[in-house]
Amino acid sequence: MRIGVLGTGMVGQALSEKLSQSGHEVVIGTRDVDAALSRTDPPRPGLVSFAEWHGANPGIAVGTFAQAAAHGEILFNATAGNASIDALNAAGPDNLADKILIDVANPLDFSAGFPPTLTVANTDSLAEQLQRAFPQAKVVKTLNTINASVMVDPGAVNGGEHHVFVSGDDAGAKAEVTKHLRDWFGWRHVIDLGDITTARGTEMYLALWIRLLGPVGTSTFNVHIVR
Amino acid sequence: MRIGVLGTGMVGQALSEKLSQSGHEVVIGTRDVDAALSRTDPPRPGLVSFAEWHGANPGIAVGTFAQAAAHGEILFNATAGNASIDALNAAGPDNLADKILIDVANPLDFSAGFPPTLTVANTDSLAEQLQRAFPQAKVVKTLNTINASVMVDPGAVNGGEHHVFVSGDDAGAKAEVTKHLRDWFGWRHVIDLGDITTARGTEMYLALWIRLLGPVGTSTFNVHIVR
Repeated sequence: MRIGVLGTGMVGQALSEKLSQSGHEVVIGTRDVDAALSRTDPPRPGLVSFAEWHGANPGIAVGTFAQAAAHGEILFNATAGNASIDALNAAGPDNLADKILIDVANPLDFSAGFPPTLTVANTDSLAEQLQRAFPQAKVVKTLNTINASVMVDPGAVNGGEHHVFVSGDDAGAKAEVTKHLRDWFGWRHVIDLGDITTARGTEMYLALWIRLLGPVGTSTFNVHIVR
Repeated sequence: MRIGVLGTGMVGQALSEKLSQSGHEVVIGTRDVDAALSRTDPPRPGLVSFAEWHGANPGIAVGTFAQAAAHGEILFNATAGNASIDALNAAGPDNLADKILIDVANPLDFSAGFPPTLTVANTDSLAEQLQRAFPQAKVVKTLNTINASVMVDPGAVNGGEHHVFVSGDDAGAKAEVTKHLRDWFGWRHVIDLGDITTARGTEMYLALWIRLLGPVGTSTFNVHIVR
């Protein structure tokens, strides 16, 4: 399948790598291709620079947001939440039209340090903002409740016995994304929360997730809903 | 132990009943004792009226907020979140002084229907508001992430394999509450999130919890943190 991944951070890299390894044709999109490829400093100690990552993943094309969006039959928004509207405007509304946009971003605001607050919460959500701004896209919120490694390899946590959620207004799009989550990444437990407003629930959960990092001692964890 | 439970709703009833059955001396507090005892209509179909509940639990004394707070060596805030400050003012700051106040309330606003929003979120929390308003109390936020029946009987869900959280500024108070959670109710997995500001995490999680009710099909569930 032709897949466009918007965002070249850890999440965009992890998604692109996994999808490319599975045989999909992936274009990873960024604002400025030359600038992205000239980043030879790792973003954080222990990570690799985008240039080094790209060198190790030559099968993944790097393009502008618009090129990645035009390429993809289905799209991922893996940009920073506070930059997502701008990134999708750069991608071009026409390139989003009638496509599923899998929104994995969180509207985190680190401007006051750690832990971040949310730029939008409680009476609205990033996913709703995106759906309103780009009504021709079929926005499905999912995967925003775990770190990048768990997104693409749920089996590495508790044998895959834990949950991910989908929110969206288009039932067919949610069903397709649910199938992709299983086939592409191995997600066995997907809970459909309802329409796009239910993304408030998973985005606000980040306030707990981020505070669990210390006590749990790793970001490679998730919640298993038990009865 | 002498325990004061503020709030006569489902949560206050469940806590009082369990604690009384375990031999603790419980006073359940309400704004107006006569009004509470004259409530003979069930609050919702399937529930019992407060008068009927009290008739079935004669060992639990009913008092004013002030009487319950004066009685308790340790206190529970089980009032509605949007009424908690008023209830605790009625309880009297002197009756809270140097006591652990276990805050199990959530700042839910149902004024626009279901699902509720939060009256405070993101940059503040109910627990912080209470700690600021009553600095002599040792506020420990916990148990606000599950329904009343799970609070007092975690073993009924997945054999007790799931998590509850504590937030608070006083390490000794959190340790004592953690012990009580185990001894009184059977909680085996208690995660200390940190200071009272971490209550933002568990209160904001309610936005997800409330949207899981439909898909999960019951309120008797919880999250098990898995790695």
